[in-house]
Amino acid sequence: MSETSPAAARQPAAPYEPTPRTEPTRARERASYDRELVHSVLDEGYVCHLGFVRDGAPVVLPTLYARIGERLYIHGSTGSRPLRAAGETDPGIPVCLTVTHVDGLVLARSAFHHSINYRSVVVHGTARQVTGADERRTALDAIVEHVVPGRSHDSRPASPKELAATAVVRLELEEVSAKVRTGGPSDDPEDLALPYWSGVVPLTRGYGAPVASDDLDPAVALPGYLAEL
Amino acid sequence: MSETSPAAARQPAAPYEPTPRTEPTRARERASYDRELVHSVLDEGYVCHLGFVRDGAPVVLPTLYARIGERLYIHGSTGSRPLRAAGETDPGIPVCLTVTHVDGLVLARSAFHHSINYRSVVVHGTARQVTGADERRTALDAIVEHVVPGRSHDSRPASPKELAATAVVRLELEEVSAKVRTGGPSDDPEDLALPYWSGVVPLTRGYGAPVASDDLDPAVALPGYLAEL
Repeated sequence: MSETSPAAARQPAAPYEPTPRTEPTRARERASYDRELVHSVLDEGYVCHLGFVRDGAPVVLPTLYARIGERLYIHGSTGSRPLRAAGETDPGIPVCLTVTHVDGLVLARSAFHHSINYRSVVVHGTARQVTGADERRTALDAIVEHVVPGRSHDSRPASPKELAATAVVRLELEEVSAKVRTGGPSDDPEDLALPYWSGVVPLTRGYGAPVASDDLDPAVALPGYLAEL
Repeated sequence: MSETSPAAARQPAAPYEPTPRTEPTRARERASYDRELVHSVLDEGYVCHLGFVRDGAPVVLPTLYARIGERLYIHGSTGSRPLRAAGETDPGIPVCLTVTHVDGLVLARSAFHHSINYRSVVVHGTARQVTGADERRTALDAIVEHVVPGRSHDSRPASPKELAATAVVRLELEEVSAKVRTGGPSDDPEDLALPYWSGVVPLTRGYGAPVASDDLDPAVALPGYLAEL
């Protein structure tokens, strides 16, 4: 939402269009195509699970990503399998990129209704190698910045040799859905009087105190963007 | 390790056998087939990312799991796509199940050497529907117990109708590898004097204070296994 454009602020971004593979077969009430929700889930994380198909079988690997507008970028060694495949195979390879935040344990009176509060985004699409030098550099900066805001301007930029050793892949946010569960357990009415505690145990995530490298010059202070984490 | 069997304690379990698809193409020093390491990574988590192939394209969904010995179990509605497919397709469907723990942000002087400390396990195999009543019940108890130790004995067990609505799928731990990165950044020697902070920001995970359901009988106290979390 832009503060300088009241018209845009009144008109939220159009949701993603559902497709057969983003329409849930169950728990439909948890599914959403809301663009801002999708963006917020993607922006809160930085590790995704990337799925691709090799020799007819699925492969799922964790990897870093960042969002720029309606594109996700992932990077890796030019020797890594999915990134190599995205480059070798024109026009790219089919992938499924999933980001999940687990927010709470949902304890019902019945074992059956135990659940997890979570927010996830599933992106289906085609991963395509990024070849343009500007887009590659912007994407790599975005990935560093996505993990630690402020860091991309406080480290040595990649050299041409390092850039050449890094594969960058782009995935358009087109076929996308979010799934969210919040709130307490959904016990059956006849179970409410059972003598079992019920409720939610929230899960927390945080940062420990930064540990400087042994060989760090003691004159280099902890930067503000890390002290604020 | 069994405390009653000193011989077994001296003889660690044999590692998993590497296969072409569990042998890394890069960062080989991070790969491991150590059975106890694999088990410890699996046992520390309870949400995995399960990949399967539908219409030739990959699908990756987050789901709960538990380990019993050399088997992983996942469960879900009998209406869920992968679980339904595992049941309909004899003898099961090819899956890739991945568990990842992100332990720290690794900040190098160079953008290129930024990294993540993590522990992940990737399991390739065939998911097969579990049909035996005893194995189904044991697996479902294990999943509840895996998320909240102590809980499976402090909730109403599943009824026959609930059991019938739940699909349980088994995946053997045969084609398995772990990948682990620990420690500080690996800066190039010529970068060590650059004026950028370098080190590791540890990531922490924890539990917030349990939130009881609005309709919980106030006489039901918070059980010890939750107070101890």
